[in-house]
Amino acid sequence: MATTQKRALVLFAHGARDPRWAEPFKRLQGIVQAQSPELTVSLAFLELMSPRLPELVPELVSAGVDDVTIVPVFLGQGGHVLRDLPLIIDELKTTYPALSFKIAGAVGEDPQVLNAMATYCVSAIA
Amino acid sequence: MATTQKRALVLFAHGARDPRWAEPFKRLQGIVQAQSPELTVSLAFLELMSPRLPELVPELVSAGVDDVTIVPVFLGQGGHVLRDLPLIIDELKTTYPALSFKIAGAVGEDPQVLNAMATYCVSAIA
Repeated sequence: MATTQKRALVLFAHGARDPRWAEPFKRLQGIVQAQSPELTVSLAFLELMSPRLPELVPELVSAGVDDVTIVPVFLGQGGHVLRDLPLIIDELKTTYPALSFKIAGAVGEDPQVLNAMATYCVSAIA
Repeated sequence: MATTQKRALVLFAHGARDPRWAEPFKRLQGIVQAQSPELTVSLAFLELMSPRLPELVPELVSAGVDDVTIVPVFLGQGGHVLRDLPLIIDELKTTYPALSFKIAGAVGEDPQVLNAMATYCVSAIA
């Protein structure tokens, strides 16, 4: 019996108390989902907003996902990306040993993202 | 006597305990400074890293700056951008009444930045 791998892309963000904070992340999710209609594109948070990552993953598993790529939507890679996220993934791997996880670098480390931010910064003073 | 306005562009970021966190912000500062050699382009932090914004501004004033544009290098606009930053600016305006301040929107609200992040997210799972 042939099986098709079902992949999910999870945009992992910090979370904040102010709901307005999440707006660009939701727009990002919408853009990525539109560009990748074959994928499940989800948003998950470290804290303060729902769903947190350990809340989202059981939903993905229930939907038949067996391959999860996580993109930290953080500008800098500090303790949240380098320490908290790997700990969360280690726990999830124990709970879901059949699930494949991949963690990408933080978006802020991408040269094209940095260039777009630079263009915006320069335009702010023009 | 003719006077020339001396402008500064301040990239305002959160700060973190891990020094590696600041790397993309320093790269961003370098890109923006290279694109705008006529400006003073500085990096300042809300907390945990130096210089904090109230530490940087006296240095800019000493250097003859009279016009400061602040770009919040944050993805989302939550309490730090919408509440903490305006409070800091209000205090600085009281201390430096001759200094002109402008606060731009957060970089994460810029459509081109969001598009660059989306392209990176899609490439992460390719």
